[in-house]
Amino acid sequence: MGRVYLIGAGPGDPELLTLKAARILAQAEVVLRDGLVSREVLAMVAAGARVIDAGKRCGRQGLGQEEINALLVLYGTQSEVVVRLKGGDPSVFGRAGEELEALRDAGIEVEIVPGVTAAVGAAAAAGISLTDRRLASQVVLSTYSRRAGSGAGEWGALTPETTLVLYMPGREYGEIAQRLREAGLPADFPCVIVSSIGRPEQEIRWSNVGRLGSEARLSPPAILIAGRVAAREWKRRGGAVLQGFDEALELAGVNEKGG
Amino acid sequence: MGRVYLIGAGPGDPELLTLKAARILAQAEVVLRDGLVSREVLAMVAAGARVIDAGKRCGRQGLGQEEINALLVLYGTQSEVVVRLKGGDPSVFGRAGEELEALRDAGIEVEIVPGVTAAVGAAAAAGISLTDRRLASQVVLSTYSRRAGSGAGEWGALTPETTLVLYMPGREYGEIAQRLREAGLPADFPCVIVSSIGRPEQEIRWSNVGRLGSEARLSPPAILIAGRVAAREWKRRGGAVLQGFDEALELAGVNEKGG
Repeated sequence: MGRVYLIGAGPGDPELLTLKAARILAQAEVVLRDGLVSREVLAMVAAGARVIDAGKRCGRQGLGQEEINALLVLYGTQSEVVVRLKGGDPSVFGRAGEELEALRDAGIEVEIVPGVTAAVGAAAAAGISLTDRRLASQVVLSTYSRRAGSGAGEWGALTPETTLVLYMPGREYGEIAQRLREAGLPADFPCVIVSSIGRPEQEIRWSNVGRLGSEARLSPPAILIAGRVAAREWKRRGGAVLQGFDEALELAGVNEKGG
Repeated sequence: MGRVYLIGAGPGDPELLTLKAARILAQAEVVLRDGLVSREVLAMVAAGARVIDAGKRCGRQGLGQEEINALLVLYGTQSEVVVRLKGGDPSVFGRAGEELEALRDAGIEVEIVPGVTAAVGAAAAAGISLTDRRLASQVVLSTYSRRAGSGAGEWGALTPETTLVLYMPGREYGEIAQRLREAGLPADFPCVIVSSIGRPEQEIRWSNVGRLGSEARLSPPAILIAGRVAAREWKRRGGAVLQGFDEALELAGVNEKGG
């Protein structure tokens, strides 16, 4: 009986792997990877290890969650060091819950090795904070789904002091913009989309809620950040001044240089 | 003129530093650290580097934000590789916004090196997912503050499908529990507090909204997670079954083993 490690590989740049993740990958006997893990990260896997690709890609159907669970239980019974390798962090939209449960039910030791989640990877790439205390008091991590009753309904709760980070925003920018308007955000509320975070093909698109629907689509994987925290960069790039932005700074009792 | 790196050191375990952070620390000439960075992480700093402690600790007053900004601008003008080292990730409750701005205004190159934020570090330590798709559709990262008009007011938006992660929950567990009740969460809604994540002195306390106020206080730094995602572990530890937990699984159209 071995141990299964659910490892977060970070947002894409292989240097954003943790030291712990790198150490365990170098000892792994079996690695079950998802589609978001880069070639450079896979190069850190022990030479003799078996690497199984569980991801969906290029129209190819990936393994289902029940199949992945069954394989993890099998490998955990046969091998000492088994890795389930995921993009970002396993506990944020990474299906870790179901895998933890299957392994525990089977009596197999399991450990999560946390990683750099895509939200903070995107903020770093765009050079912004998610929680500038003068502009935002909280961050919501969510996804966009067209399904009724999905998480999207909960954005009704958004306030201008919330930074919304959407994982897997897809291509329906117009629908997302519409939902953001319905949630009470003004047309000049800034947002930024980052695709292929930390990879050579990384792209960053500065926009706002009003323009979002007509922006050219970026390739997945991508992250969309909507929040006042993007206002200053938006402004530096010549965008219109955000409604209430200067008022917010004043209300916060700070001047432009912080305090 | 050099470059200033705002580096996230992760939640505490030195092995949760990224490869990039470790590489840059080994080249640093000056490191301005905050109080949450561990001794083991500091041991990775280049031998000849100057390390300045900007943190509050043991009642000692730390440097103010304006002082830190001024020092970063000074070092950025004098040295090639300057590091501002913070616990967790710089863009989540890490004051990165003000430092980025001061450095950009001074024409100094600045780069964020993202880290493992404490929310996902705490989830990994507790062995839970923050977004089990059967139980939670989004995550709110917030803080607890007794100040009126602070972010705490926004929890009014909480739903049972939200996982709330509180950074710096402090010692007023009773007040937090009261706010959570006011936000509509039932007394048996599970929560878990993790202190000193990934450190030898790490402590994990499983609780629920009803009991939270009478729990013994854990030492800072700590993270409080309130969410259905903690229900299964709470149950395994003999806690009462969460109201609506089995119904939620059924509604989600999945059985206990996922699907």
